[in-house]
Amino acid sequence: MALETIAENRCFDGLQGVYRHESEACNGPMRFALYRPPQALAGEACPVVTFLSGLTCTEENFTVKAGAQRMAAELGLILVAPDTSPRNQGIAGEDDSYDFGSGAGFYLDATQAPWSKAYRMESYLTRELPAVLEEYFQADWSRQGIMGHSMGGHGALTLHFKNRERWQSVSAFAPIVAPMQVPWGQKAFTGYLGDDRSTWEAYDACALVREKPSRAEILIDQGTADNFLNEQLRPELFEQACRDTGQPLKLRMQEGYDHSYFFIASFIEDHLRHHATALRG
Amino acid sequence: MALETIAENRCFDGLQGVYRHESEACNGPMRFALYRPPQALAGEACPVVTFLSGLTCTEENFTVKAGAQRMAAELGLILVAPDTSPRNQGIAGEDDSYDFGSGAGFYLDATQAPWSKAYRMESYLTRELPAVLEEYFQADWSRQGIMGHSMGGHGALTLHFKNRERWQSVSAFAPIVAPMQVPWGQKAFTGYLGDDRSTWEAYDACALVREKPSRAEILIDQGTADNFLNEQLRPELFEQACRDTGQPLKLRMQEGYDHSYFFIASFIEDHLRHHATALRG
Repeated sequence: MALETIAENRCFDGLQGVYRHESEACNGPMRFALYRPPQALAGEACPVVTFLSGLTCTEENFTVKAGAQRMAAELGLILVAPDTSPRNQGIAGEDDSYDFGSGAGFYLDATQAPWSKAYRMESYLTRELPAVLEEYFQADWSRQGIMGHSMGGHGALTLHFKNRERWQSVSAFAPIVAPMQVPWGQKAFTGYLGDDRSTWEAYDACALVREKPSRAEILIDQGTADNFLNEQLRPELFEQACRDTGQPLKLRMQEGYDHSYFFIASFIEDHLRHHATALRG
Repeated sequence: MALETIAENRCFDGLQGVYRHESEACNGPMRFALYRPPQALAGEACPVVTFLSGLTCTEENFTVKAGAQRMAAELGLILVAPDTSPRNQGIAGEDDSYDFGSGAGFYLDATQAPWSKAYRMESYLTRELPAVLEEYFQADWSRQGIMGHSMGGHGALTLHFKNRERWQSVSAFAPIVAPMQVPWGQKAFTGYLGDDRSTWEAYDACALVREKPSRAEILIDQGTADNFLNEQLRPELFEQACRDTGQPLKLRMQEGYDHSYFFIASFIEDHLRHHATALRG
């Protein structure tokens, strides 16, 4: 599979790249960002942490706003930031909402036409992108973590629960933890998966942890001034599910922080240390 | 003078704000970003460092891409990031070039019509903005530094030489050091100042240092893979002028780095430490 280099910039003695490749799962070209720390450039097989972004984002937001490369360089972590959905599918309504369609793939495989022809981010992230990465980049693919923000926090939690072997460490910023119970998730799941709610449970972190908790300690940061806290995020639902099932969870309510990348930047160091400790331990 | 708050976000236990006010010098509303570290929120009178951005930028680029708040919070520095030009003046051709007009104010006072009615960034930065800042924010205004990138590096160097009392410390990333001798500067100065090159010298760092060097040690970082290095930036001209005049200069050529914010982010910590040391010393 061919890989096209869009840009490469030296950053903290490592290399921040943006790449594009043809995706079968997503029915067209997909972009991702990948940061290689200096250790990787020197030939070391480094652990890999994937960051999944939130609604409206592309691979760029995390890459330019989170300030993550500094700690990745210090800790010797490779960072992968995929796009958040297929693009330019020509589906009616694809670009009409900020919370459905373009920029809102919700890290699932759609089963409903016309979305099912392209909106298959789960297959993309679990099968297709890993094949591309392993073909073109050197890393220790046996040590990987996953993290994300908001919709991407939902993606990180659910993909971890469903792929514990691949992604051994997990963390999230202001994640959607109970999509079946909140408007963002209900809209997305109805559109992508249809009305049968039993099919939704495979993409709901609260349902998945109740089915089978993971051994990994989950780190979640949540700002108390986040506008979406009470309606869309509801971390207390996940906290309760973890308590009920013995799932190790470190949920930190961060006073006065909102839903922005200023919040992510403030705590990205803690998250990368969390992954490095788990993956190198 | 009224100050409008556009946004305020908690960041590294401080507060990142974006504000707008009416400007007489720039003939309309102007925006700036200002970060207050936790020490300032707790009532300490903190030193202030102003960052001037490069061509095409607004107050946003540095604020979201440089990762500067982390070190500002650690060092107790207030950060100010002004816009790079007046906006929406309705002047013919104002938005036609990336290197002249909107986003390209060059930190000078234009003398040529029609630009002279609004393109007066020097007056804005030396008189008008300071008055607004001192009215609305608590700080130690006797301890200030100035820094910038590319066109903003030109602004930082020239404004320091012309206002040594106000801005005691200075640094730059990939600055335009000899605008009279490079295409970007020649185009801007011709348009804003006219054909009489004797009027240009007040805005040329190489000319200003030869007129009177400053006691401050100047820190400059320059990437060796910067596409603009040989045609527009030419740090060797400033290095020679500093050597000839005894101006203290630390010029660091950074191997493989380009002109992007990934370069700035990689070295912003060193620059903020440079300012903190000079201002607190």
